[in-house]
Amino acid sequence: MPTRRAGAGMDRDDAEAILRSAPYHQFLDARFAAYEPGRVVVEVPFREELLVNPEHDIVHGGVLGALLDIAGHYSVLSEVGARVPTADLRVDYLRPARTADLRAEGQLVRRGSNLAVADAEVSQPDVGDDPVAIGRGSYGLSHVD
Amino acid sequence: MPTRRAGAGMDRDDAEAILRSAPYHQFLDARFAAYEPGRVVVEVPFREELLVNPEHDIVHGGVLGALLDIAGHYSVLSEVGARVPTADLRVDYLRPARTADLRAEGQLVRRGSNLAVADAEVSQPDVGDDPVAIGRGSYGLSHVD
Amino acid sequence: MPTRRAGAGMDRDDAEAILRSAPYHQFLDARFAAYEPGRVVVEVPFREELLVNPEHDIVHGGVLGALLDIAGHYSVLSEVGARVPTADLRVDYLRPARTADLRAEGQLVRRGSNLAVADAEVSQPDVGDDPVAIGRGSYGLSHVD
Amino acid sequence: MPTRRAGAGMDRDDAEAILRSAPYHQFLDARFAAYEPGRVVVEVPFREELLVNPEHDIVHGGVLGALLDIAGHYSVLSEVGARVPTADLRVDYLRPARTADLRAEGQLVRRGSNLAVADAEVSQPDVGDDPVAIGRGSYGLSHVD
Repeated sequence: MPTRRAGAGMDRDDAEAILRSAPYHQFLDARFAAYEPGRVVVEVPFREELLVNPEHDIVHGGVLGALLDIAGHYSVLSEVGARVPTADLRVDYLRPARTADLRAEGQLVRRGSNLAVADAEVSQPDVGDDPVAIGRGSYGLSHVD
Repeated sequence: MPTRRAGAGMDRDDAEAILRSAPYHQFLDARFAAYEPGRVVVEVPFREELLVNPEHDIVHGGVLGALLDIAGHYSVLSEVGARVPTADLRVDYLRPARTADLRAEGQLVRRGSNLAVADAEVSQPDVGDDPVAIGRGSYGLSHVD
Repeated sequence: MPTRRAGAGMDRDDAEAILRSAPYHQFLDARFAAYEPGRVVVEVPFREELLVNPEHDIVHGGVLGALLDIAGHYSVLSEVGARVPTADLRVDYLRPARTADLRAEGQLVRRGSNLAVADAEVSQPDVGDDPVAIGRGSYGLSHVD
Repeated sequence: MPTRRAGAGMDRDDAEAILRSAPYHQFLDARFAAYEPGRVVVEVPFREELLVNPEHDIVHGGVLGALLDIAGHYSVLSEVGARVPTADLRVDYLRPARTADLRAEGQLVRRGSNLAVADAEVSQPDVGDDPVAIGRGSYGLSHVD
């Protein structure tokens, strides 16, 4: 069980242990490519199972939404030092995601007394610089002691 | 290739063929439990791979978000008769989803000239009646001819 | 100063005093048409100053968003018994609002430990039954003692 | 009636004429402080009528939401060259807005075929640099000819 230091952020090894313990993250093969207080990058290699439309090679929007949620979540956790359940999330789909690896960056926007706000974007560096989807989420801080 | 009848809705067999053709839907094992113009129910059996936290048996929020997106999407498609890309989606997480089958209901709210709005909710009938997550999405109608 | 009974809801007179004390509500001339725990109706008479487009007689979307926020807010306050700051709000504009009185109904969806979720819709009874805008907001509960 | 040059953006004088023609904008006394294709700044002087809570000197969230909508809207219009109705908007309230002038900046994020996405933030330069509210909206492009 990782040590939690409320208010002091969580170090990368502890966060990685939580990230990798989730069966759904194992399905995605999600890993940190960067991790610092208030900002994380999560990478997911492309796989056939992520597609919504095999004819047109488009990644499922639900996968992109999950990556935005994960990146936002860990950007908060890295600063707050405890699990922070997602309260709500908005996702905007900007362009189709293709058969290439996915990179999700999360950034803490605001840490309030009982809620934090984080922004996230998913891009495909092998395809281009423009994000394919952007998200903004609210994360509950009630379980921080 | 399913026949598309723009403006006339899509029949269940054609929609089911599209639903089942998606590799990510096959991973989820998503199936229609109800299908009518403007309203669909999608069911997903519980599986270990859907969990975010195996210690506390909580389903990953990204999976719930995907189900809301799918249910909203097909509630529009069933009325509009063509694929309708998700423009944006808001998800509110109301309570943890447990180790039980998932049921997502989507309902068309408004069909405009270039955008449709749909509401969706995910519940777990074996656990209780209250939804675990609710969502609202905007779906583009530009590709309808 | 109205009495606050945390956890026990706030009665209509106290809520009305708070509603009417806000200068912006006085500008809107907002009043309760219904008030019960978890559900309120707020009415705003039509006025020229609410228009965005005087040529086409369309009410400003910012006014509709404010009404959704107000209705959602008081649906939470009526149940929780204290002011509950809006954390975030999504508004969907379904059709233009015309030169007619506005009616906003708010409904508490879920009261959590540090956050409540409420739905709201604005309609114009003199024009038709369909809502012109719908909203969903998250309201912080941290200041409830 | 301002000339509309679809696809070519709208010049500042034409946009200002539309901005100033709205009775609700006149109530707010909203003016452009900056205007270029894809990015605008709108300023609103503080007035008593904008308050929600005169005891604590807090500006009404509905006013902030309206400013986010306006700034996002004109950032799209400045690039697209025609009125672009707001389809949906999410607002996140980050901190209370005080008795000081308001500055809303809008930025076009993505112009699609039938929808544009814009980000906006409201700040109070006389109080501090941090935004008091941030928003993200989808704007319909169907009426562009």
